[in-house]
Amino acid sequence: MLPRLMEESPGYGDFIELISPSRKLYFLILGEGKSLQTHRGVIKHDDLVGVPWGTEITSHTGSTFFLLQPNLADLISEIPRSTQILYPKDIGFILVTLGIGPGVRVIEAGSGSGALTTALAWAVGGEGQVYSYEVRPDVLNLARKNVKRFGLDDRVKFCLADIQEGFEERGVDAIFLDVPNSYDFIPQIRAALKPGGYFGTILPTINQVKRILLALRQNQLGVIDVCEILLRYYKPFPERLRPTDRMVAHTGYLIFGRKIISMIVENHEAEG
Amino acid sequence: MLPRLMEESPGYGDFIELISPSRKLYFLILGEGKSLQTHRGVIKHDDLVGVPWGTEITSHTGSTFFLLQPNLADLISEIPRSTQILYPKDIGFILVTLGIGPGVRVIEAGSGSGALTTALAWAVGGEGQVYSYEVRPDVLNLARKNVKRFGLDDRVKFCLADIQEGFEERGVDAIFLDVPNSYDFIPQIRAALKPGGYFGTILPTINQVKRILLALRQNQLGVIDVCEILLRYYKPFPERLRPTDRMVAHTGYLIFGRKIISMIVENHEAEG
Amino acid sequence: MLPRLMEESPGYGDFIELISPSRKLYFLILGEGKSLQTHRGVIKHDDLVGVPWGTEITSHTGSTFFLLQPNLADLISEIPRSTQILYPKDIGFILVTLGIGPGVRVIEAGSGSGALTTALAWAVGGEGQVYSYEVRPDVLNLARKNVKRFGLDDRVKFCLADIQEGFEERGVDAIFLDVPNSYDFIPQIRAALKPGGYFGTILPTINQVKRILLALRQNQLGVIDVCEILLRYYKPFPERLRPTDRMVAHTGYLIFGRKIISMIVENHEAEG
Amino acid sequence: MLPRLMEESPGYGDFIELISPSRKLYFLILGEGKSLQTHRGVIKHDDLVGVPWGTEITSHTGSTFFLLQPNLADLISEIPRSTQILYPKDIGFILVTLGIGPGVRVIEAGSGSGALTTALAWAVGGEGQVYSYEVRPDVLNLARKNVKRFGLDDRVKFCLADIQEGFEERGVDAIFLDVPNSYDFIPQIRAALKPGGYFGTILPTINQVKRILLALRQNQLGVIDVCEILLRYYKPFPERLRPTDRMVAHTGYLIFGRKIISMIVENHEAEG
Repeated sequence: MLPRLMEESPGYGDFIELISPSRKLYFLILGEGKSLQTHRGVIKHDDLVGVPWGTEITSHTGSTFFLLQPNLADLISEIPRSTQILYPKDIGFILVTLGIGPGVRVIEAGSGSGALTTALAWAVGGEGQVYSYEVRPDVLNLARKNVKRFGLDDRVKFCLADIQEGFEERGVDAIFLDVPNSYDFIPQIRAALKPGGYFGTILPTINQVKRILLALRQNQLGVIDVCEILLRYYKPFPERLRPTDRMVAHTGYLIFGRKIISMIVENHEAEG
Repeated sequence: MLPRLMEESPGYGDFIELISPSRKLYFLILGEGKSLQTHRGVIKHDDLVGVPWGTEITSHTGSTFFLLQPNLADLISEIPRSTQILYPKDIGFILVTLGIGPGVRVIEAGSGSGALTTALAWAVGGEGQVYSYEVRPDVLNLARKNVKRFGLDDRVKFCLADIQEGFEERGVDAIFLDVPNSYDFIPQIRAALKPGGYFGTILPTINQVKRILLALRQNQLGVIDVCEILLRYYKPFPERLRPTDRMVAHTGYLIFGRKIISMIVENHEAEG
Repeated sequence: MLPRLMEESPGYGDFIELISPSRKLYFLILGEGKSLQTHRGVIKHDDLVGVPWGTEITSHTGSTFFLLQPNLADLISEIPRSTQILYPKDIGFILVTLGIGPGVRVIEAGSGSGALTTALAWAVGGEGQVYSYEVRPDVLNLARKNVKRFGLDDRVKFCLADIQEGFEERGVDAIFLDVPNSYDFIPQIRAALKPGGYFGTILPTINQVKRILLALRQNQLGVIDVCEILLRYYKPFPERLRPTDRMVAHTGYLIFGRKIISMIVENHEAEG
Repeated sequence: MLPRLMEESPGYGDFIELISPSRKLYFLILGEGKSLQTHRGVIKHDDLVGVPWGTEITSHTGSTFFLLQPNLADLISEIPRSTQILYPKDIGFILVTLGIGPGVRVIEAGSGSGALTTALAWAVGGEGQVYSYEVRPDVLNLARKNVKRFGLDDRVKFCLADIQEGFEERGVDAIFLDVPNSYDFIPQIRAALKPGGYFGTILPTINQVKRILLALRQNQLGVIDVCEILLRYYKPFPERLRPTDRMVAHTGYLIFGRKIISMIVENHEAEG
C-alpha cells in the first residue's frame, strides 16, 4: 500500500510501476503467468517477483525498465480521465493550502476519475476520512477502482448523490469541489464545513471564477485566494539545459476560502 | 496540534492565527493577560479564549480580524528566514513528487528556518519520521522552535552534523536537500536511500542544476526531472478580475530523481 | 532624431541617455552651462558635448555612466505615466501584429503619456502618419511633449476630441485603442479602418476582454486573437545564472482583430 | 508591397493571404487560371482578382475564407523552417530593443529561413539597409525567396560568407546573430558596430547564455540584458474565457548589449 511498502521486492498481487527510458509509464498488478506487452518487448510478471524495488531491468533483448513502487504523481498523471484534468502541480498546492494531512476529514465532489480522491486518501492517513460525492454511477465506479489499486479504499466513503441536496457530514475540515458549477453549492458547503474550515475548487474559465467570487461573498466565506500554477519542465541534459519546447498552459484557476462566522467580540483595547 | 484541533475554540497555550482584511498575518500562542499590538489597535489574548475558530472579530474601535487555526501555507510564508526561501507552491509539489505521506521516513538537510521541516512533519503523521540535518547550531535551534510551535517536534529528529560525513539512517523513503552544493552529497544520499527511494533538491541557479545533473548521472540516480513552478495570483474582485501586477518570478529549480540498482534480469520474452 | 543620429557625438540641444552601472536611466537635452544632479555625483552637460556616443564616462570621483543615444525601449519604460502602462514587451508585439512599419497610417486613442505614440511615430517613418486622439488637454500636452523629445512630432497629428464622436480619418491601416472602454467604440473603429485593416487594444481586466469580444463579434471584426505577454529577465552573471526574483506579472490582455466585409463570391469549384 | 498595398483589391501577381475559420493560413501569388486546393474545397485565383481586401468569401459549397493582405506575423509563423525558430513574440521585442526602424542599417547572421530578414527589411523602410550573412548557399536562397515574396528584396544585401572572417560593413546601427555559437563572433561584431550600437542574439540553451555573457564581458559590451518572452493565447469565446490548453514554453533566451568605448572624461563635479 502506498506510500510505504515494507517489503523490499514485490510479490503476486502487488501494484507496481515500470518506467521506460523514454518515460513511458506502466502500472500493473503482478499476476502469476501474466505478461505485459509493450512495443519494446514483452515483460513476464513472474520474472519481476522477488526483484528489489528500484531495479533497472535489462531483458535479453536489450530493453530496459525501472521497477518501482508506484509514484503518486505518476499515477495521477496516468489515471484514465473521464472528466477534466487535475494535475500533480495543482494537487500538491491544494493539499498544502487546504491543510490536508494525517487525521483530516475532507469532502470532495465529484469523484471524477479518482485522481484527487487517491491523493486525499493517501494524505489523510489511516485516521483520516475522505467523503467522495459523485452523481454518475459509472464515474463513481471508475474512481473507486482507481483508489482501490493503491489499497486506499478503506479511507474513502463514496457517496452516490447529487450535492444539490447537501452533504450528510457536518464539521468537516475541508471541502474541495471539482464540478463546473461549484458556485451553485456554497450554502451546502457552508453547512458541512466547520467554522474556519477550508474550501477549494478548480474552474477552467474566468467566467466561472467571477461567478464563484460573487457566491463566496454572499455566503460569507473569507480569506479568498484566486491563483493558477504553471509548471515548466527542463530537458535534463547538463550540456544543453533548456526548457521543454511546449508546456501545459492551463488546467484551471484555483479558488480558496475559509468559512467565517461574524460576531462582535468585546475586544476592549488594552491600556498602553 | 495541526492540522486538527479537536476543540472548537482556542484556550491558553494554543497556537492561533489572526488575519487582517489586508491579509496581514499574526501567529501567536495565547497567554493570560497578554496582548497583541497592531497598527490597527490592540488585541487582548484573554478576549480570544473560548471564541470559536473562524470568527470575524470586530473590536469596539472597528478593526476586524479573522481568528483561525494556523494554516500551514500561511505559516510557511511567515516563518522568519535565515536562509533561502521555500514557498508553499514548491513544498506542495515536493510532497506529492517525493511521495511524502503518513508513515514515511524522510531526511532533510539543512533544517533552514524549519519551513520544510514543519511541512514534512505534518505530512508524515504520527507514524512517520523526519530526520533534519543542520550544521549550524543557531539555525537548527530556530528550525526546532518553529516546528515546536505547531506541536510537531516529536516527529522530528534534529541532527547537528555535517552531511559530508554521511547520514546515520539507512533505507529511508526520501531525502530532500536544501543546501547550495547539494551536488556534493549524492554518494551520501545514495547510501541512505532505499532502492527506488526519492531524492529532491532545490537550487537557485542554472549553473548548480548543471552540476547536479552530472552528479546524479555519475551516481546512478534515474527518473530525473528538472522543473520550476510559477504561482500567479489574481485580484479577487469579480467585476475587475485580473492578475496581480507583480509576482515572484523565481524561487529555485526543483530537481528530482530515484535511486536505481542495475542488474540483468533474465526476463525471457514470452511467446506470442 | 531617433533612431539614427548621423553625428558621432552629441551637441547642445541633442537628446541623450545616460545609464549608470545599476541601470538607473537619465534622459536629458544638453544645455550650455547646465548640469545633472545624481546621487552618484554631478554631471556637467558641457563635458558631454563632443564625446562619442557609446562612451563609458568615468568622472574624477570615480562614478561611471554610459553616454548613449536614447533607446526607444528605455524611453518608453521611463516616460512619466499619467495613465496605465504600456511596456516595450507589449509594444513590440503590437507593432508586428498590426503591421506598423514605414508608410503606415495609424490611429491611436488615447494619447496617454505618449509612449505608444512615440513608438508608432518612430515605426511609420517620414512617409507614415500617426493620428493620436485624446479627450483631456493636459494629457495630450504631456504626450506631445514626450514625442517632441524624440523629434518625431511632425509625424503625429494630435486630435483633442472625444472618440465617441468618431474619427475624422477614413481607410487607415490600423487603429490601437488604449482606453478602458474600448468596447464602446467598435462602430467608430469600423468606420475609420480600411477593409482588412488591423484593430488592437489592451485591457487590464478579463471582464473587459469579455465585453470587447462581444462587441467585436457584433461589428464583424474577424481573425480575433486574445493573448498576454510575459517578460522574464535573468540576472546576467555567467556563474550564477538565474531569473530575477520578481517580475511584472500583468500589464494587460492584448486583443487583436481585422475589419471584414462579408460577401458571397461566386467562387466556382474548379474541376478536378 | 508590405505593409501598404495602395490598391483596394488584389490583381494578378499580387501576394495574398487567405485565412480559414479554423485559422489555417494560405499564402499565394495570384496567377491567371490557377487554383488553390484545400481540404475545404478549391479556390480559383481568377475569382479573387478585384475582390476587396478584407472580404469574407463564401464559395457555393459553403466554405468561407478571409481574403487579406499578408500579415507579417502570420507570414513569419508560416515561413518554412530550415533551422531554429524565431517567433513574432521574439521579433517584436527584438525590433524595439535594437531600435530597428526606418533608416537603420542592420546586420543579421545567419539568414536562416528569412523570417527575421523579412521583418528587418520591412521595419527599416526604403532608406534603411539590411545585410544578411549566411554560409550555406541553399539556406541563403530560401531566405532570399521568402523576402522576395514580400517585395522587400531591394532592401537586403545577401552575403554568402563565413562571419568568422568578419563583416564587411562598419559603423552599423545594430547586429543580430541567430547562430548557435554567437559567442564566437563578438570581436567581429565589435568591429562592425558603431559605438553605442546594439547587439542581440537568441540562444536556445542556458549553457550558451553563460558562454556569451563571458564573451560580452571580455569584449566590452555593456548594458547587457538576458530575458525570455512567454506568449499565452486565450480562447476568444466571451462566455468561456480561458487560456489555451498548451503553449510554446521556450523558443530561446534573448541576449542584448551595446558597444561601449571606455575613456576617462574630465567630468569635473560642478560646485553646489
